[in-house]
Amino acid sequence: MADLRGGIDLGGTKIQTAIVDAGGELVGQARRPTPTSGGPQDVAEAMAAALREAAAEAGVESGALSGVGVGAPGSADERTGVLSSASNLPGWEGSFPLGETLREALGTEVRIGNDVQVATEAEFQLGAGREFESLLGVFWGTGVGGGLVLDGKPWLGRGAAGEIGHMVVKRGGARCPCGRHGCMEAYAGRKAMEAEARRRHEDGEKTDLFKLMEKHGKPRLTSGIWERALDHGDKLAGELIERAVEALGTGIASAVNLLDPEAVILGGGLGIRFGERLREPLAEEMGKHLFVDERPPAVRVASLGDLGGAIGASLLVSR
Amino acid sequence: MADLRGGIDLGGTKIQTAIVDAGGELVGQARRPTPTSGGPQDVAEAMAAALREAAAEAGVESGALSGVGVGAPGSADERTGVLSSASNLPGWEGSFPLGETLREALGTEVRIGNDVQVATEAEFQLGAGREFESLLGVFWGTGVGGGLVLDGKPWLGRGAAGEIGHMVVKRGGARCPCGRHGCMEAYAGRKAMEAEARRRHEDGEKTDLFKLMEKHGKPRLTSGIWERALDHGDKLAGELIERAVEALGTGIASAVNLLDPEAVILGGGLGIRFGERLREPLAEEMGKHLFVDERPPAVRVASLGDLGGAIGASLLVSR
Repeated sequence: MADLRGGIDLGGTKIQTAIVDAGGELVGQARRPTPTSGGPQDVAEAMAAALREAAAEAGVESGALSGVGVGAPGSADERTGVLSSASNLPGWEGSFPLGETLREALGTEVRIGNDVQVATEAEFQLGAGREFESLLGVFWGTGVGGGLVLDGKPWLGRGAAGEIGHMVVKRGGARCPCGRHGCMEAYAGRKAMEAEARRRHEDGEKTDLFKLMEKHGKPRLTSGIWERALDHGDKLAGELIERAVEALGTGIASAVNLLDPEAVILGGGLGIRFGERLREPLAEEMGKHLFVDERPPAVRVASLGDLGGAIGASLLVSR
Repeated sequence: MADLRGGIDLGGTKIQTAIVDAGGELVGQARRPTPTSGGPQDVAEAMAAALREAAAEAGVESGALSGVGVGAPGSADERTGVLSSASNLPGWEGSFPLGETLREALGTEVRIGNDVQVATEAEFQLGAGREFESLLGVFWGTGVGGGLVLDGKPWLGRGAAGEIGHMVVKRGGARCPCGRHGCMEAYAGRKAMEAEARRRHEDGEKTDLFKLMEKHGKPRLTSGIWERALDHGDKLAGELIERAVEALGTGIASAVNLLDPEAVILGGGLGIRFGERLREPLAEEMGKHLFVDERPPAVRVASLGDLGGAIGASLLVSR
């Protein structure tokens, strides 16, 4: 039992928890919605409850776990356990001692890290990146996040490495949700794509995207809605996905020119859904900008799926 | 004597050699023009002669050195000593066993590496990067090359890391000397800047750049010519330097967003000449695109100057 570890993937819409054994096998899991009101203390309580639920499924008390790791958005300080600037979580513009709060609630050691970085490490240790020693994780979802494993070890820089979504693909280009211009995410992030679709639709371009969203009762253009629209031959959806793939290919090629990793792992909601389908156009866009174009890196779709973040978080315990 | 090492910086116009003691002090040096005709064997002979000349200045035979390192353009295979695709050297489109040839000529172990990477390592160990554990070297000259030191060690990727000049700053932008579009080097490389100046001048824009070039008997727009033109208030020169700084700031910020290093070392002919003068505009351009803009990396101008490449090459011996 001492070999069981917990992982918590703290997202803007859901909290996914996992209990993992020493071999990386999943032995318990639970999911809860992320509180949309209140503050960090409420989020921490929901996280603790979801973790206890997963532990119960695995037949242990949380205090018997060898530790719990948390993959969090915003700026996670691994040394102090403080999470700052997690602006898509309620009342979390400032700093909150998340590690300490969870340690008291759960009765075991807690370590926090960056959500995308731990998902990359999960793919490196247990998923699609197992055969490689260096990889670039690209998580294509609401935004575009990145993670790095170099020479078998996570590379965090001064704590904020991996922001591939904010590499510039077009100087003076589209405005990004981050407020800057020309970032890869300004073209490829789901949130930016939805905003662009809405603008073009309001300007008179035809699309079924928003009809499909309403029909399926979704509050936003989910990756599933984009897929349905593509399947229906929706022209605007096709153009915006193509535009996203151009930006992804350009930004990934830039990162590969700088780092020359063995592999690129494509994850995230859109990445997992479209990774295989868009493999060829993505490779083609990358090829236009790769400096050493005769040996592109391997491109793999993340294999741990939705649970990658929570499993990756559990790996923080032994790091 | 066994502690003396040799270094050879193999450039397109000159071969610079250095003899360095165990403390990194320079004890001998020599420079020769790079042969412009013939083939790899002729270049190797000129390299060996220049190294022997530096060794003589240091009072040793080349065979008494503990080894010789070579920083080379093109694709250098550190394991085999083969240099390939060094297209700015005469007859070097293919592969040539440079390490083995020099070992026989000099009577000591020879290691070859990438010119920009070894210059970055020299700055890390002995120059402007000494106080940092992670740095990005940006060598702004004829092209724009890059080198990486991460966690105190060189990062080479699969052998071709560091191509910061071919990170894309503007999708669909200017054509680069490499044949691709929108690379940082297409705006900031000396060669691309000269081509753009010539195009605009032929289209009727006024500039003293080419008059200054002729007056000073230069075959091209050297960094010194650019500086003179700026000092004279030449409008076209000012615009093209500004355009270069915009591209450099954008590309460096993209690299920093991905890697989050402690420092950026700016070297190369233009980098050394303009580093201090353009510090403020470069910081401003970077600031527009840095994701964590409240703590930009330190930006330092390379301190080893013209000899950094040869000194860095000598460090390959003990690596």
